[in-house]
Amino acid sequence: MAAKLKTAVLGASGYSGLELTRLLERHPRLERPILMRRENGDGTKDLAEIFPELSGNGGYQLRPLSWTELKSQGVQLLFLATPHEASRALVPEAIAQGLRVIDLSGAWRLKQERHSAIYSFEDADAITASELTDQAVYGLPELHTDQIASAQLVANPGCYATSVILALAPLLRARVIDLDRGIISDSKSGVSGAGKSPSPHTHFVSVADNLSAYSLFTHRHVGEMVEQLGLSDSELTFTPHLLPIPRGILSTIYVRLNRPMTAREVESCLREFYSGKTWVRVFPTPKLPQVHYSLHTNYCDLGFCLAEDGQRLILVSCIDNLLKGAAGQAVQNMNVMYGWDEREGLH
Amino acid sequence: MAAKLKTAVLGASGYSGLELTRLLERHPRLERPILMRRENGDGTKDLAEIFPELSGNGGYQLRPLSWTELKSQGVQLLFLATPHEASRALVPEAIAQGLRVIDLSGAWRLKQERHSAIYSFEDADAITASELTDQAVYGLPELHTDQIASAQLVANPGCYATSVILALAPLLRARVIDLDRGIISDSKSGVSGAGKSPSPHTHFVSVADNLSAYSLFTHRHVGEMVEQLGLSDSELTFTPHLLPIPRGILSTIYVRLNRPMTAREVESCLREFYSGKTWVRVFPTPKLPQVHYSLHTNYCDLGFCLAEDGQRLILVSCIDNLLKGAAGQAVQNMNVMYGWDEREGLH
Amino acid sequence: MAAKLKTAVLGASGYSGLELTRLLERHPRLERPILMRRENGDGTKDLAEIFPELSGNGGYQLRPLSWTELKSQGVQLLFLATPHEASRALVPEAIAQGLRVIDLSGAWRLKQERHSAIYSFEDADAITASELTDQAVYGLPELHTDQIASAQLVANPGCYATSVILALAPLLRARVIDLDRGIISDSKSGVSGAGKSPSPHTHFVSVADNLSAYSLFTHRHVGEMVEQLGLSDSELTFTPHLLPIPRGILSTIYVRLNRPMTAREVESCLREFYSGKTWVRVFPTPKLPQVHYSLHTNYCDLGFCLAEDGQRLILVSCIDNLLKGAAGQAVQNMNVMYGWDEREGLH
Amino acid sequence: MAAKLKTAVLGASGYSGLELTRLLERHPRLERPILMRRENGDGTKDLAEIFPELSGNGGYQLRPLSWTELKSQGVQLLFLATPHEASRALVPEAIAQGLRVIDLSGAWRLKQERHSAIYSFEDADAITASELTDQAVYGLPELHTDQIASAQLVANPGCYATSVILALAPLLRARVIDLDRGIISDSKSGVSGAGKSPSPHTHFVSVADNLSAYSLFTHRHVGEMVEQLGLSDSELTFTPHLLPIPRGILSTIYVRLNRPMTAREVESCLREFYSGKTWVRVFPTPKLPQVHYSLHTNYCDLGFCLAEDGQRLILVSCIDNLLKGAAGQAVQNMNVMYGWDEREGLH
Repeated sequence: MAAKLKTAVLGASGYSGLELTRLLERHPRLERPILMRRENGDGTKDLAEIFPELSGNGGYQLRPLSWTELKSQGVQLLFLATPHEASRALVPEAIAQGLRVIDLSGAWRLKQERHSAIYSFEDADAITASELTDQAVYGLPELHTDQIASAQLVANPGCYATSVILALAPLLRARVIDLDRGIISDSKSGVSGAGKSPSPHTHFVSVADNLSAYSLFTHRHVGEMVEQLGLSDSELTFTPHLLPIPRGILSTIYVRLNRPMTAREVESCLREFYSGKTWVRVFPTPKLPQVHYSLHTNYCDLGFCLAEDGQRLILVSCIDNLLKGAAGQAVQNMNVMYGWDEREGLH
Repeated sequence: MAAKLKTAVLGASGYSGLELTRLLERHPRLERPILMRRENGDGTKDLAEIFPELSGNGGYQLRPLSWTELKSQGVQLLFLATPHEASRALVPEAIAQGLRVIDLSGAWRLKQERHSAIYSFEDADAITASELTDQAVYGLPELHTDQIASAQLVANPGCYATSVILALAPLLRARVIDLDRGIISDSKSGVSGAGKSPSPHTHFVSVADNLSAYSLFTHRHVGEMVEQLGLSDSELTFTPHLLPIPRGILSTIYVRLNRPMTAREVESCLREFYSGKTWVRVFPTPKLPQVHYSLHTNYCDLGFCLAEDGQRLILVSCIDNLLKGAAGQAVQNMNVMYGWDEREGLH
Repeated sequence: MAAKLKTAVLGASGYSGLELTRLLERHPRLERPILMRRENGDGTKDLAEIFPELSGNGGYQLRPLSWTELKSQGVQLLFLATPHEASRALVPEAIAQGLRVIDLSGAWRLKQERHSAIYSFEDADAITASELTDQAVYGLPELHTDQIASAQLVANPGCYATSVILALAPLLRARVIDLDRGIISDSKSGVSGAGKSPSPHTHFVSVADNLSAYSLFTHRHVGEMVEQLGLSDSELTFTPHLLPIPRGILSTIYVRLNRPMTAREVESCLREFYSGKTWVRVFPTPKLPQVHYSLHTNYCDLGFCLAEDGQRLILVSCIDNLLKGAAGQAVQNMNVMYGWDEREGLH
Repeated sequence: MAAKLKTAVLGASGYSGLELTRLLERHPRLERPILMRRENGDGTKDLAEIFPELSGNGGYQLRPLSWTELKSQGVQLLFLATPHEASRALVPEAIAQGLRVIDLSGAWRLKQERHSAIYSFEDADAITASELTDQAVYGLPELHTDQIASAQLVANPGCYATSVILALAPLLRARVIDLDRGIISDSKSGVSGAGKSPSPHTHFVSVADNLSAYSLFTHRHVGEMVEQLGLSDSELTFTPHLLPIPRGILSTIYVRLNRPMTAREVESCLREFYSGKTWVRVFPTPKLPQVHYSLHTNYCDLGFCLAEDGQRLILVSCIDNLLKGAAGQAVQNMNVMYGWDEREGLH
């Protein structure tokens, strides 16, 4: 077998970062990843301090970020699980150092113009940032395999965006959706999607036995969805909700077909689009995915139900927000970037 | 003060029946309700057997149903918290006995024709059943106060139906919704809405950490919604979901206005419609209701968010499915039927 | 009916404070309570800002604390739902102003010496503080009715302490416990017991699907327990656990009897002790209380199971930590202080 | 690499059986396991019918149990995840067929005499059953490695028993516990421990927001604990509780040492006992395990806290009841039986 790849993770102390670290650790093509922390991060020195479940495996030391060390250790691929401001600031240097980068934040997912509008944030070096934005590949392997394979900078998609784009892409590609009627995604996410920082909104007593809608018409992930799906802003209405569960996303998506179809045709459309794609499972109607089914896996599960009129169509899309919605997808992207089987390290 | 009303409850051993019993017990206008059980019910003899939380208040004996006893005890109002088949079979006799009836099941909510289509069920005496169906008043006091006041048979609305109808009635009355675009209600309910019978679907391990959609395009409550709102079947798409919480409903409702409106206009429309109605709270935009806020109350909480285009409108409607969605609404109906303040016994 | 009592609450923005506010609002003997906030509190100006469920009842304005205003409004009884440092600092002035005080914190529950050891905190005026400590009555009405009736300062018990003391008091009074063997209380509490401040320990993702033990041998409530029960420190081992539920406490308590007894004798011992006490329910063996049964009530539910040897005894004690463990008990104490029925305002 | 082992599973449709199937499937030393169902089982024909999360991996067909087929397929090891009555009836034939057996039920864990007392059940062939009972090895690899290695019939331990025995074995072996004082294990388990059959006790609404104690002094697992630990029945008090979580066990165990010890000594005692044992993690005091840490792993996590007197000791022991408490331990036993590394297939 070939020499193992050297990787590093910056930001392992968040939920996605932890999940990523665990996946990388047991990936058969990799050496044990180097874990690094930002100077102004949360000060964690060993991951097991904040995730005691990690104890007993020789420690998970977080070293201060050092480009010199990355180079001397022979690291070729850097994962960033940092806030988008940090990613925006660090990626230019990483690329300049010759590293390939998979960034899990929203920093590089959008075209420059939309990015500026959504993430009100100034780049230190606007020209480089703009060039990198052009270069960055949106890391949804089911849509962009070839570009990811050769990318130096991969922008790992948002969790909600993954669940919505994968459900809609086949039907939009087939041009069977009546866009004048608009598309609605009513999405529900577990709390890990809101991050690990304590806040009144993530307090157990606020979340348990509750459900709430938030960021109506204004959630940042809408930008990714419309860009990737080629929609105008007003063609997609997206409403996220906070579920009293630790992890998992279910999106219930409402579209109107521009001509009556049969359930068989809809199913074929989905199946053909994802033929040969390991990580999307299409459920035969009337079976629908539930959050449980894809939990702790890298699957995106898709199901649907068609009204008797053959035109009102409801899609149901489920993922684990920390896996297919973050760390699992990052590993899948790595597999594509290095020409490995997409399943490696993800069973 | 006038003599207290005598009431009886049949079916107190379900979730709604228990909640109803508790409300009736402390209602200032009532004597302690008589609790009865059907011969082919679950055999419970004292409610405290299955709800030990009731112990210590003199017992909650369930006597076998007896019309003679109801008459001799001077009972005037009978609550049925029974399955719809049982309600359909028992109400004719109750009405013949001169009782007023509030039925919490789906037995009398729909016009005869739709009823036959949705509840595939034959009546023993089809003529009487059909006449009673005509007589029955849909017990949503915010819409039908006067009819409820004089009704002999009140059909207490379904829980989902309550949350959806109350959100949409004002805008439909104002004729500002573009019906050609269709209305979508993506609704989510706690598990008590599924009843107390154990099943694989209500097993803790199936529900916890999960979310699932069910009965797409086929849920029975759609019948009530379209009838009460004057919609055609295809104008309303309703998708229920099972939430990992014991109680509470949140409906996220998507409509398109037939002309651009301001948030202020939308809010006025809602506020004016519910002016003087105690049990509907309209939240000022951008504040949205959450399941928590109406839990353990009889409130229906309404909020909304309008897109920048002034036409895409999202309504959020929350109720406690066991109160405004069942037992609380039944008590509110009783208050209307006897000319009492709608708030009595519901604080 | 006599004129209604005027009361005020300081600290209504915490979980216990909110629950207390709700109870006081509908208490038939009271005017609507005045809500006040500390200068260095959390800045809330209207309770409905942080508890939107309160909206629609005329507002819950929090005014800055002012002794002048309390006096001019004719307030006679002040409830403090503040951190213990704040209570310790404010009570001397409140008493000097002639107010009666019910304090929900740990500030006045312990004898001076133990207090200094457990709450490492210096009083501004040590002499006054020490005198008030002597005067303060431990507000467990089942044990100290007469003293509470005439108290000026009532120290409302801790939630864990309430569940443990009420379970053990009858058997200790009857001198049937073998103290040489030690008493163990393995207690489990919902998250509201940890307060409303967000922290990593109360984050939904940390608590859900989890259980953890904490403060082994060192929890502050042990002080109250041993003082009230007349035990030495080493005779009681108390272990609290954090449950993934919003509210409720269950204590499983292990004792050894100093002679074999029958279950009937044990039950009699409990029943006689609590004869005439509304708010303690003794369950007939083998029925045991569960957290559910006392939730949203002011009951302390007690049950037990005796080993075949007649000496190993397990007591199970349940309360709602925000009611019998905090706000409900405070109202019960008020009822005793003013000679009202202990049930008033607590159904 | 040697030829892969052929295994079969009977009873894959329960929670433990599903978990076991998943583990066996990706175990590097095994061929894909054959799944079989009993004639009077639940009729499932493909596991994916009841566990749709399994879809997309070529199916999980359950064939009718057939000794002929097991033989012709070359199966050498049979896992039984069946009710204890079924295991008791089937094992004699399996052994007669020359199969090695790992049984996950309680059928073969106890000495004959105790078994008859606890499981009131008559064997068809009492002599064979009694002989097999003598032969059966209690499958706790940390205690009985050598016997398991050569066993034909391994009785996989109960979940509660695993958590309690592993915590106590080191200290009992070291004879430092004062047995006259008695040992108490207050244990709490997630709902999957109660099995997959729907019942009022496992209904979501009964479990959520609740906690209850059950089977006081009478739980079947006590038999295993006292036998394995060499205790008399009265020396161990065991109280199980039902937690509102899907999986995980935490046992809080109270012992008194027969002489004052230091925390260091206690830790050494635990560490030495488990030196070289992969699947037990000893936490350095004052760090304590939580349910979360061992979830979805095969670890048993042990921690402790010692009172200042050096004699009152509290042990905290956590496992995932479906892994170290059932399926994971079964795989660990298989690893020992075939001389493989205990970690194989369990990362």
